[in-house]
Order: sequence, then structure tokens, then C-alpha cells
Amino acid sequence: MTANAANAPLTIALDAMGGDLAPTMVIEGAEIARQHNPTVHFLIFGDEARIAPLLAKHPKLAAASTVRHTSDVVTNDDKPSHALRNGRGSSMRLSINAVADGEAHCVVSAGNTGALMAMAKFVLKTLPGIDRPAIATFFPTLRSESVMLDMGANIECRPEHLVQFAVMGAVFARSVLGLTEPTIGVLNVGAEALKGNEVVKEAAAQLRVLEGLPGRFEGFVEGDDIPTGTVDVIVTDGFTGNIALKTAEGTVKLFAEYLRRSIKSSLIAQIGYFLARGAFRKLRDRLDPRKYNGAMFLGLGGICVKSHGGTDAQGFASAIDAGIDLVRNGFNEKVKDGLQSFKMNGQEGVSPQVGDVAR
Amino acid sequence: MTANAANAPLTIALDAMGGDLAPTMVIEGAEIARQHNPTVHFLIFGDEARIAPLLAKHPKLAAASTVRHTSDVVTNDDKPSHALRNGRGSSMRLSINAVADGEAHCVVSAGNTGALMAMAKFVLKTLPGIDRPAIATFFPTLRSESVMLDMGANIECRPEHLVQFAVMGAVFARSVLGLTEPTIGVLNVGAEALKGNEVVKEAAAQLRVLEGLPGRFEGFVEGDDIPTGTVDVIVTDGFTGNIALKTAEGTVKLFAEYLRRSIKSSLIAQIGYFLARGAFRKLRDRLDPRKYNGAMFLGLGGICVKSHGGTDAQGFASAIDAGIDLVRNGFNEKVKDGLQSFKMNGQEGVSPQVGDVAR
Repeated sequence: MTANAANAPLTIALDAMGGDLAPTMVIEGAEIARQHNPTVHFLIFGDEARIAPLLAKHPKLAAASTVRHTSDVVTNDDKPSHALRNGRGSSMRLSINAVADGEAHCVVSAGNTGALMAMAKFVLKTLPGIDRPAIATFFPTLRSESVMLDMGANIECRPEHLVQFAVMGAVFARSVLGLTEPTIGVLNVGAEALKGNEVVKEAAAQLRVLEGLPGRFEGFVEGDDIPTGTVDVIVTDGFTGNIALKTAEGTVKLFAEYLRRSIKSSLIAQIGYFLARGAFRKLRDRLDPRKYNGAMFLGLGGICVKSHGGTDAQGFASAIDAGIDLVRNGFNEKVKDGLQSFKMNGQEGVSPQVGDVAR
Repeated sequence: MTANAANAPLTIALDAMGGDLAPTMVIEGAEIARQHNPTVHFLIFGDEARIAPLLAKHPKLAAASTVRHTSDVVTNDDKPSHALRNGRGSSMRLSINAVADGEAHCVVSAGNTGALMAMAKFVLKTLPGIDRPAIATFFPTLRSESVMLDMGANIECRPEHLVQFAVMGAVFARSVLGLTEPTIGVLNVGAEALKGNEVVKEAAAQLRVLEGLPGRFEGFVEGDDIPTGTVDVIVTDGFTGNIALKTAEGTVKLFAEYLRRSIKSSLIAQIGYFLARGAFRKLRDRLDPRKYNGAMFLGLGGICVKSHGGTDAQGFASAIDAGIDLVRNGFNEKVKDGLQSFKMNGQEGVSPQVGDVAR
């Protein structure tokens, strides 16, 4: 399916059985997302006996939904290869198939990340010029928001993978964040060109000379540049990206808990907190991890959004919203265009080989 | 020199020329540290013409100090190999030599990390059984404090290096944090044994079966386990560790800035903040990065503490305090003992080879 006008009807496929609190948070999340997007249709895959009573509580959602029953589920313990072979009838697989078959515009799942990526890659294929899809996420920064990838799909990367991530991230920043010329940085342990491992050094060397990049390459950035917002797009391998993201999430929790303990330590501080509670609520909203819950699988031939497995209905609704945004912004068409203009600049697609580039 | 009783006189060698604000913050930091440790003697290496007027402001510090003049400095742009070859007369090198020669009990520098590590390794050598020294730092957690290593000395690691880091980190947690049986985790993208790259999987496989480890190996931990304090010792390669640490530091700054902006947004919130300001001060003190400024080089034949290059006098004083703690706690003797008992348990030192260990 192609990009949709802002109010054209969209169909979203939901894996109702993925996630710790599924299917309840999936259905409750769909109801929240429906209120933001009243024309959306939901195609819900999972155990009908468990889904029907949840839908019964929300007549408007029920009217906007079609349930397709399956009792087969992918669990969090399933290896991706196992899920791929044995999960052909699972709610996860059927919801991905719905996108491939043109029944739905995007799929949202809070299930096993590795299995979802393996199935989505197998069913939806990668976009031409992309070897490996990446998981991208928003990150709140001092400036506004940036996008960071990969967040864990690719534990070990070659330099050309990081170059592809840079291209996808820049197109994402253009189409979803609305930036004209997004800035791009490769995550490293120092800003100097001689620092870091061979993979980041080679990726940066390639990015420095690449023509037609849909953004401006700024070189290396460090861990503290992520929350500072030094660049719009942060490129990293999935091992480092996953650890950096989770470290940041944990640090926010640490700070919030220290703040709570400090305030509890005196009555005056509690009165002060009471007066300033609106400000604290604003702060909490701003850093609410549920707001940044949709991790987008970029580089696939269809839109696939992964919700955090432990999320609640509010977080699952954010993931649905992220999917709707990607579809309405015609993200995949723009990635294809971006790759196209990139190729037309005389480069070998987005996969220059190591050694091809003069240093 | 051997471990000192709590009040025996110690000599600390200071590289007065390393760091963005050197030599001022070095001398001012020494004065702060002297107030905590009135019996300490300082052996200060650097440009006497710049150091003398700074010392003149603090007669007690001047009386407790000896200045050794050199005009040669290692800059932040020097490659470690260049500094090693050409910096034999530098303030950094001479202050390290002072430890090797038995003139000082430890050395503190805020200079070029790579050069400091290269010189310290060359001059002080590594402890028997340690292939590569690591940079360790404290990390504030929800529980108390943990120690994390490596923070950037070793960009690429083999599994046996991570095993050695685990041993050193555990001895550190025992002798400096005072824990009887510190818990140890290897940083990874998931807690399941099948996740991660080959290096962390192999390191964990070795740690699981190792006897005589001076702590309890708990398996893999994730990024959010660092600030949570799930384990006492977090083991990682220097690339990931450096990025995780800087991401956490930057996230604290982001949170603090969001908090400031939220509070500024209304008069009532400002009044609330004013009432609760004691609590905020407590919070700021608790997360003050200057408190955690001393990064310890573990695994060397002498105590070497690296201060953050951008630190101020307060932060440099913390680094001096960290060095004094390590000396007074007899850290290196305890590492040697730890490695000894470890070897005596029938393992091949701390360097089992890949493949030696049954899975």
C-alpha cells in the first residue's frame, strides 16, 4: 500500500498475544490509540476467547476491529530461528503476513524482539540496498528529540551496515522529525578520528566521503552527546545502542528515585514538592518512557513497530501512534527515494565495500 | 611501598600539567585534599614558574609539597605511542616514575588518558596474571555504589580480558567498598545466555565455572542494571563501558535541565523549589560527577588515578582522595593475594584460554 493522506482510513495489524501484559494492554492500548485516530481500523490476531471480553468493554473499538483467531503464540524464550520455523500460525506471524498481503498498512507487536525481527525480515524482505534492518528509537534531548539506531537487532556490524543505518536514520529524521538536513554522528569513545574500533573508524571514513547522504555527517559523537542532542541521528551497532538506551532509561529512574528520597527527607521539602507538583508532572511526562515506546524496524518492505515487552496500555498506544505516523508520512517510500538519489550520485548503492573509499 | 596504616605519611605524585584547567585546578585540588589528609606530602611535577605563584596562596600546602620542574608536557592530541617515545621528560612521565622509584605511593593525573595508560603500563608494568590494565570507576546506584570496568582503556577485548577484569573488580569491591562477597555481572543486551556477542558469551561461560573467583558471578546484566545496582561489579569492554558511563552522565544533566525548566515555568513551582532547595542540594551532591571523578587504573604494579580532563579543583581533590584510599587499603597487595588464591585453586592463573572451559 502507498502513503495515505492524513485522514484516509488505515488498517493496523496487532499481535494481541505479545508482551507481558497481553492481550489486555494490547486491546486497552488500541482503544487509547483509536481515540487519537478515530478512522483507523484494527486487524487483531490472537486468542479470540481472551480478546472478545476485552473488546466488549469498548463498543467503538469493537466496531472498528476485526479479530482473527489463533491459539498459537511466540514466547519470549523462543529462539528467532525456532519461531521462524514453528510459528507460522502464531499471532505474531499472521499480523506480519497481513502487511505483506496488503491487508494492513503496518504491524505492531510487543512480543519477542528477535523473533519479530526474524519473521518481519523473512516475510516483508529488506528494502533494496539494505542488508540489515535496524531498530530505531526516539531519544529526548536538551534540544528536542533525536533518533538512534540500531537498538539491538544487529549485535555485530560491519562498517557498511553502519553506513546504511546512517542513511535510514537521516531519512527517518527528515520524514518523521521534519528536518531538512539532519545531522548524523557515529557513536564512539571520543571525537578524534584516531579513537575507537576498526568498524566505527571505517564507517566514519566512508561517511565522510559519501555523496548524496540525506543529511550532514558530523563525525564521531560520545555517550553524553546522546541526551545533549549534539546530532539528530546517532548511528551505532545494536550491542552498544541497546546498552546505551537501557543505561539512560535506568539513570532516569535512579535520578527520579533519588529526587523522591531527597524530598521525603523533610516536611518543608514535601511542602515545596506539593507546590511544585505541576512542574514535576510536566517533567515526568517529558521523560515518560512510554512516550518513546515505539521502536521502529527500519529497512523492511513494510512498517513494523516493536513495543517494549513490559509496556502498559498507554505505552502500547504510543507504539500504535508511531506506526500510524510512519505510514501517514510515507516513510518507506521516502527511504526508497533517499536510497535512489543516493545511488544516482555515482555510489554503489548504500553498500560501499571496505577499502573502496580513499582515506 | 607497602600498605600504610591510616595515619602514616603518604607521598602523592601529581602531574600538575594535565587537564583543561591545569595547573590551577591541580594545586587548588591538592589544597582541598590536604585539608582532608593533613599528613600527606605532595610531589608536584610541572612548570615551576606557573606552580609557585599558585602554591604561594596556600602556605600549608606549600610546606607539604616539593616541586620538581619540567617544561615538557603531554598534550591531549598526542597519540599514546608518541607520548611514550617523546614524553620521557614530561610532567606525566616523571610523576609516574616517582611511583616506580618508590618516591611516591600513587600518582594522580588529569592528562591524556591513552598516554597516561601507555606510560603507566610501560613504567609500572602489569601485575602478574594481568594482561591488560583496566580503568575502573564508581557508579552511584539505587542500592549504594558499584564499580564498573573497563571504562575505555581496552576498546576491543578477548574473553580472558573480561575474566581478568572480573577478578580485579571483585578485589576492588572487597577492599575499597568493603564487601565480603561482591556480586559480578557481565554487561550484555539481555540476561539470557544465548544473547550477545561471542566475547561476552565466552567470558560468561568461563566465569560460570571458574573456582576461586573473589566474588559471586551472577551472569549477564543489562544497561538499566548499572544504575539499579543489580550487581556490585559490572564487567565490560572499554568501548561499551565508556559509552554507557558517558550516556549516564549526560542523562543526569538532561534530567537536571528538564527539572530546572519545569520549575521555572511557574511562580508557584519556583516557591516550591525554594522550600525544597535543601532536598535538591542533597540530590545534586549525591549525583555530583566530581564525587566519582577518580578513575582507577587497575592491574598495574603501582596505584595510578586518572582524573577527568575537564574537572575542577573539587573533582581533582576527589581523585587524590581515591588514590589515598587505594594506598591506605593496600589495594595492590589485595589484588595480588586475590590472584594468588585464584591460582591456588587449580586454574591457570586468570587467563584460561578460549576453549579450555567445558560448557
